[in-house]
Amino acid sequence: MKQVDILIQNGTVVTMNENLSCYSPGAVAVCGDIIVEAGAEESVLDRFEGKKVIDAHGGIIMPGLINAHTHAAMTCFRGLADDLPLMTWLNEHIFPAESTLSSEMVYSGTLLACAEMILSGTTTFCDMYLFEDSVAKAARRAGMRALVGEVLYDFPSPNYGPIEKGFDYTAMLIDKWKDDPLVSIAVEPHSTYLCSPDLLQKAQQLCVKHDVPLVIHLAETAQEVSRIRKEYGLTPVGHLADLHILGPHLIADHCVALTHEDKTLLREFDVKVVHNPESNMKLASGIAPIPELIDNGVTVGIGTDGCASNNNLDLLGEMDCAAKLHKVNLFDPTVMDARTVVKMATIEGARVLGMDAITGSLVAGKKADLIIIDIRKPHLTPMYNVYSHLVYAVKSNDVSTAIINGRIVMEERALKTLDAEETMAAVNRIADERLRSFS
Amino acid sequence: MKQVDILIQNGTVVTMNENLSCYSPGAVAVCGDIIVEAGAEESVLDRFEGKKVIDAHGGIIMPGLINAHTHAAMTCFRGLADDLPLMTWLNEHIFPAESTLSSEMVYSGTLLACAEMILSGTTTFCDMYLFEDSVAKAARRAGMRALVGEVLYDFPSPNYGPIEKGFDYTAMLIDKWKDDPLVSIAVEPHSTYLCSPDLLQKAQQLCVKHDVPLVIHLAETAQEVSRIRKEYGLTPVGHLADLHILGPHLIADHCVALTHEDKTLLREFDVKVVHNPESNMKLASGIAPIPELIDNGVTVGIGTDGCASNNNLDLLGEMDCAAKLHKVNLFDPTVMDARTVVKMATIEGARVLGMDAITGSLVAGKKADLIIIDIRKPHLTPMYNVYSHLVYAVKSNDVSTAIINGRIVMEERALKTLDAEETMAAVNRIADERLRSFS
Repeated sequence: MKQVDILIQNGTVVTMNENLSCYSPGAVAVCGDIIVEAGAEESVLDRFEGKKVIDAHGGIIMPGLINAHTHAAMTCFRGLADDLPLMTWLNEHIFPAESTLSSEMVYSGTLLACAEMILSGTTTFCDMYLFEDSVAKAARRAGMRALVGEVLYDFPSPNYGPIEKGFDYTAMLIDKWKDDPLVSIAVEPHSTYLCSPDLLQKAQQLCVKHDVPLVIHLAETAQEVSRIRKEYGLTPVGHLADLHILGPHLIADHCVALTHEDKTLLREFDVKVVHNPESNMKLASGIAPIPELIDNGVTVGIGTDGCASNNNLDLLGEMDCAAKLHKVNLFDPTVMDARTVVKMATIEGARVLGMDAITGSLVAGKKADLIIIDIRKPHLTPMYNVYSHLVYAVKSNDVSTAIINGRIVMEERALKTLDAEETMAAVNRIADERLRSFS
Repeated sequence: MKQVDILIQNGTVVTMNENLSCYSPGAVAVCGDIIVEAGAEESVLDRFEGKKVIDAHGGIIMPGLINAHTHAAMTCFRGLADDLPLMTWLNEHIFPAESTLSSEMVYSGTLLACAEMILSGTTTFCDMYLFEDSVAKAARRAGMRALVGEVLYDFPSPNYGPIEKGFDYTAMLIDKWKDDPLVSIAVEPHSTYLCSPDLLQKAQQLCVKHDVPLVIHLAETAQEVSRIRKEYGLTPVGHLADLHILGPHLIADHCVALTHEDKTLLREFDVKVVHNPESNMKLASGIAPIPELIDNGVTVGIGTDGCASNNNLDLLGEMDCAAKLHKVNLFDPTVMDARTVVKMATIEGARVLGMDAITGSLVAGKKADLIIIDIRKPHLTPMYNVYSHLVYAVKSNDVSTAIINGRIVMEERALKTLDAEETMAAVNRIADERLRSFS
């Protein structure tokens, strides 16, 4: 009998391993930051004894969710302005509000985002914003796994100033966080329309030099495609191909407005795609051809985007929406089935972020990033199919317990790494003192 | 100082009255089953003293939500089969499972539905199913306001047998429940494709005789429209017009596939429409032209449809989905703004059900149907705009307290009229003993 740190039992274990094995009843054994076993309960309990035993009460034990694209600190702007034409929203509300940003605001906004994400089952997120060292610090304090990067563009940044300093700042982040167990760094040019070819190529060189991912907003709207076509005679995807930037290290967010050639390029270069259905719906950007991309073999994760365009960081809600949106869009109830959607939010999300060796599935040897869902609720009764339940019925607050890197960050809905009251109070102060006038 | 039964204070009161007045801080005074005042806190507290005082803790005090179309007892089939072609889903799973129905199953399934609805802020629902006397009894036991009616069609029903008995059964329901403070009865022919013109006209006569609403599924899919065109040379809406059935008493569910003429008919005859976006998405039925109907002056409510095609009864989730779906469908972020969506789920829903004199807004003299939303949560921080918050950020479990007809049916998430454990256990038994084989 081997002693392990944490033993989770009495639940349906959804491993999201290669065979999509489920065990009911199943159990998971965690030692230090590592999963040592995930399997049939009897077999796990026969071999392991837990210093701490967690009872899943018949619920679901699964990999923590991966929010593959967000702007965490934008929790500060949640619902600041909605239902407006894109340019009014940006120019009269979001940009003026963002001009007041400081590292303290980003830190507080990100802490609040981490609280919301942990409470809704997310254990890993990929972030693009300003003052990303503060995002990294906040993720670290919350105990969340994060891939973060400073947004780069061709006008002065409230954080680093001119773009050259942006590259220095990014290089500093890469160096500072290189040995961190939770935080890693990406190079993150905003988009083809806010970044010159020169900026994009320098970003690419920095990625190659440090072997880190490149994150970009790509083909989010038809307007973006028109603008890039006018400027370069190419689609945004074609433009990146022309600059030799497409590759397996590229994480392309949105990918709504794609030509047939764009789709072929994404597949051929093994570009990773992040789907953000709720943001694309709320901003009326369009519907990304995700089922076709997946069918063609593109690796697709899912993200919430920022709180200004969603207005939450609830990945379970995003999954439900993704499953339903593509069905009605294609007049086909069989597309984006529940299994596919759960994969997007777990193992495929991990592949997108280059983290599938360490997270995204409950497999022995991986880091212990997992959540427990309490199904003893009227809206989760009865349960016939666990994937269907996860996508169409489970709500964010049904996540009872979350473990990241072997550490319990939430237990029975209580946050263990953050003080929820204090976190909310800090952002309420920012809203009242600095942001309410922009609403 | 007048004594009232319940005084709710320390919240933002969203009245949904004609001027959409909000009071922050506001308070609501309830005496017996009636709202005696909803207004600015100071003014209400100056005049009323509560036997029971409820602190909203800075949250939102608003009318209870109205689920204008559901099949409550289908909670038994939640997630029984998903992601399948419509005919496979119906013929191989839902119809065989439904053939086992009994009044006991419907009663248990509806009790579970009532638990889920109360826990997610719904205080009134409109139901169509089999064994509706059991639905009425379950709603009564739960203390929910309900408009219910037995589904009528031209083949033998597991409840009443031949259609003539269906009319007798409906007449019995009308008589039995006529003086009930919570339950009222509608005549409910299933659809133009499952009901002959003769059945539809008899249903209409029964409505006229008893002055009750007529509820029908209408123009849910393009396939339905083709079928009715082939059979009668008319669209489903045109067919009902031809039979002189259109009118302000008609509640038409779905209304997805409408011609220009259909839309004109719905407006001219003041037909009430219920939007079911998540069901229409999940079954790939299509996107109803709701913004256009509302612009044209049609009264539109919102419903979840049954749990087999959603898979929940969460009206707040449905609201979020409705707001976002039409934006992306019309490439216009200004349509289905948050105020419009909250109206659909409250006062417009009450109009649809012919209940706007008694519910749907917090107005002195109306029945006390209201809910309190607890906003002291990370995902509800900060709050800039209350309507935006309700549609895009508030989740079903943020509803802390619910009052129906002056009776507290939930307080701080605890159900007062139902035993949640017992309710879940009953449906789990039904699932295990009778339904799991159909999944």
